[in-house]
Amino acid sequence: MAAIEPLNDTERAEALDGLAEWDYDDSRDAITRTIVFSDFVEAFGFMTQVAMLAEKADHHPEWKNVYNRVDILLTTHDAGGLSERDIELAEAIDGVLGED
Amino acid sequence: MAAIEPLNDTERAEALDGLAEWDYDDSRDAITRTIVFSDFVEAFGFMTQVAMLAEKADHHPEWKNVYNRVDILLTTHDAGGLSERDIELAEAIDGVLGED
Repeated sequence: MAAIEPLNDTERAEALDGLAEWDYDDSRDAITRTIVFSDFVEAFGFMTQVAMLAEKADHHPEWKNVYNRVDILLTTHDAGGLSERDIELAEAIDGVLGED
Repeated sequence: MAAIEPLNDTERAEALDGLAEWDYDDSRDAITRTIVFSDFVEAFGFMTQVAMLAEKADHHPEWKNVYNRVDILLTTHDAGGLSERDIELAEAIDGVLGED
């Protein structure tokens, strides 16, 4: 597999334009999103769907769950910042949420 | 269900004596444990088992996952601190890890 390059400023700006629900975290060169569900079962069900996608893509989120809340951070450790793989995973996550 | 009371100092000390792998977080009146697995599938598989136990007990962890690592914090929001429900969940988690 080719080395993964971080997005440059132009690429990042374009990608973020297409990800309305995601915020850019400058300190980590990452994108973040928080989703609040109705309860734990809904939240963990969502996480399970994302886990499958993430494993299939061999690209995994940093995430935290507290009851009905899931905080996700996506960055590419191998690239030292945000890469196309994060954008693809963010789009897949939006798809799980019925937003694609 | 009766109101959930936080553990007093003696109860907490006794409980922690029985939970060798857990640390006490004074700032949150919580217990924490970090587990490192071989990969994401192992880590998320563990989380799925814990999710079932937690939902059944109606007592849920605060937790974070980054690839093969899971950080867990247990406290009882309704009690304003560590309660017997956290100790029971910690013991159940140790059980999932084959440590009971």
